[in-house]
Amino acid sequence: MKATIERATLLKGLSHVQSVVERRNTIPILSNVLIDAQPGGTLRLMATDLDLQIDETIAAAIDQPGATTISAHTLFDIVRKLPEGSQVELSAAEGRIVVTAGRARFTLSTLPRDDFPVIAEGELPTTFELPAETLKQIIDKTRFAISTEETRYYLNGIFLHVSDESTPVLKAAATDGHRLARVTVARPDGAESMPDVIIPRKCVAELRKLLDEVDGSVGVSLSNSKIRFDLGQAILTSKLIDGTFPDYSRVIPTGNDKILKIDPRSFMEGVDRVSTIATEKTRAVKLGLERDKIILSVTSPENGAAAEEVPGDYAAQPFEIGFNSRYLMDILGQIEGDLVEVHLADAAAPTLIRENDKSPALYVLMPMRV
Amino acid sequence: MKATIERATLLKGLSHVQSVVERRNTIPILSNVLIDAQPGGTLRLMATDLDLQIDETIAAAIDQPGATTISAHTLFDIVRKLPEGSQVELSAAEGRIVVTAGRARFTLSTLPRDDFPVIAEGELPTTFELPAETLKQIIDKTRFAISTEETRYYLNGIFLHVSDESTPVLKAAATDGHRLARVTVARPDGAESMPDVIIPRKCVAELRKLLDEVDGSVGVSLSNSKIRFDLGQAILTSKLIDGTFPDYSRVIPTGNDKILKIDPRSFMEGVDRVSTIATEKTRAVKLGLERDKIILSVTSPENGAAAEEVPGDYAAQPFEIGFNSRYLMDILGQIEGDLVEVHLADAAAPTLIRENDKSPALYVLMPMRV
Repeated sequence: MKATIERATLLKGLSHVQSVVERRNTIPILSNVLIDAQPGGTLRLMATDLDLQIDETIAAAIDQPGATTISAHTLFDIVRKLPEGSQVELSAAEGRIVVTAGRARFTLSTLPRDDFPVIAEGELPTTFELPAETLKQIIDKTRFAISTEETRYYLNGIFLHVSDESTPVLKAAATDGHRLARVTVARPDGAESMPDVIIPRKCVAELRKLLDEVDGSVGVSLSNSKIRFDLGQAILTSKLIDGTFPDYSRVIPTGNDKILKIDPRSFMEGVDRVSTIATEKTRAVKLGLERDKIILSVTSPENGAAAEEVPGDYAAQPFEIGFNSRYLMDILGQIEGDLVEVHLADAAAPTLIRENDKSPALYVLMPMRV
Repeated sequence: MKATIERATLLKGLSHVQSVVERRNTIPILSNVLIDAQPGGTLRLMATDLDLQIDETIAAAIDQPGATTISAHTLFDIVRKLPEGSQVELSAAEGRIVVTAGRARFTLSTLPRDDFPVIAEGELPTTFELPAETLKQIIDKTRFAISTEETRYYLNGIFLHVSDESTPVLKAAATDGHRLARVTVARPDGAESMPDVIIPRKCVAELRKLLDEVDGSVGVSLSNSKIRFDLGQAILTSKLIDGTFPDYSRVIPTGNDKILKIDPRSFMEGVDRVSTIATEKTRAVKLGLERDKIILSVTSPENGAAAEEVPGDYAAQPFEIGFNSRYLMDILGQIEGDLVEVHLADAAAPTLIRENDKSPALYVLMPMRV
């Protein structure tokens, strides 16, 4: 194998690829990137953690086709430190690869390409396209609610499913049992008979990074065990979480009749301020709902007390309710407009938060006793 | 006590002060900042860790003079989150302080001002002024070499002493036994009979931060146990390290006759590149000195080999020498000009590095076996 690549091109490809590779691996080949110099001027870079695989194609001058594997982080670190504008020559033979650029020369050991595990995609019968912007929105508005509890592995991702309502829709949901985020978008053509799937957190994270460099549309193909995102230069393939996502629709309240309409910025800033003195453990903030205002307050046995009044539209019966301040701020931080609707029932009932009844995203937050 | 302060003014003062306060304290009062509202429109903020003390004076409207102490980090976090441009009212009585700004109100518990430990400066017979720029240079060019080994406590700071050479000078030195950094500046008036002192690392760090906001001169006063820096708004007082700094002048080689003159940037970048594959433990890089070039190389049993040639002026006998790549890069990163002089003797001898014979800073680096 022998190939010459622009440093910037190689660096960009490797930056995507190395991010999939775990820092610590008990299986040596999983630390490596597969480099495949293909006739016709393309270099293919692949990396995997056995659950998630990235396959990136970049332009290169190929002198001699061939493939090998080499430590992804080492190669990335080397290329990162090479002078800007330099040409990188990769030349592999007999268990070694020589990386040359300018006056620098690195000899690194390789592992055979045949040992590199490629995820068998199998058939992916469902295929549709989503605008990159829509996919970004789905991820940005839900990922913060993904559970990190490993025992509830079926909550460790974003749940994607289609539904026939007044119009056919595609829904994305994430929850950790304390809060729920859901985004609804129009169902893309081809997703009609899509199975319900749970996309793992790591795939979501890598996909989101790659989306920053994509304009236009992303091809999505899936079966009930695998999903594949075609992002042009890069293809991301992931196993899906093999589990059943709970029927979350039951926790979305529909009859909450106490409506607060409030500026999400001043609401969030107020919560942030009073929660300064909340104890690390509970982070509870109390909302005292009164006629056209709320009183945010925190009492901490160690630190003292804090209170702030925030004006808002509220005409229902006054009452008090507590929330985890961080969860509340996570949700308020998602609201882009100047007004947010908070639909409350009582101090023990799930509360619904959304921009308005037209907004694609809605959030449910469980209260805390305060 | 009752005072009203501009949020920005208070925030800046507290940001200096809270940085001196350790995050964890077994003695509660050490977590607190002393707030002293003084007649005449000034608020004094003091914090200490018993070794280092900061005393900052800011402008405030004083309604009722008085003093109290309150958690420095909590107050800093609160003020940081207050809206820009707001006025902060502090009002203390009966073991509590009320912090009010806009619609927010915080009640925090206080500890009596009389419990606050103030460092007794005693007499500080040596007094001189140093331009802030000179003080910055002294710190920037030496602090990286300060030892972090607690057992060698006498190396945990910058050594400052005066010396009569062809002209009277003030010298600052730091070493960890592997490398030494020394800066020489003209002796300021008043420093003639200054005792040798070792300024502790934390004082150096806080001083350096404060210097970014100072133009003009800094007043330095010291005895053989305390040092005080007068920075205008802020006064920093520190205990000195009670120990004897080794006679470092003996390790500065004077007879090294193999001279390499080289561009410090390409030298450093080359070392950075080849050391990519060095093992975390040794980080050793080998320099092969040849006629008008050096060959940088690293061999790692795990990763492979790397080599890079860097052109440089060298006419002495070819030989090889090894260094810790990180230490070498630390020093090369200090060189501002386009050329650095490396004075070598042999593979086992301390090596001298400096910009040229006029430069105020010089560095000594111990070689490693490679």
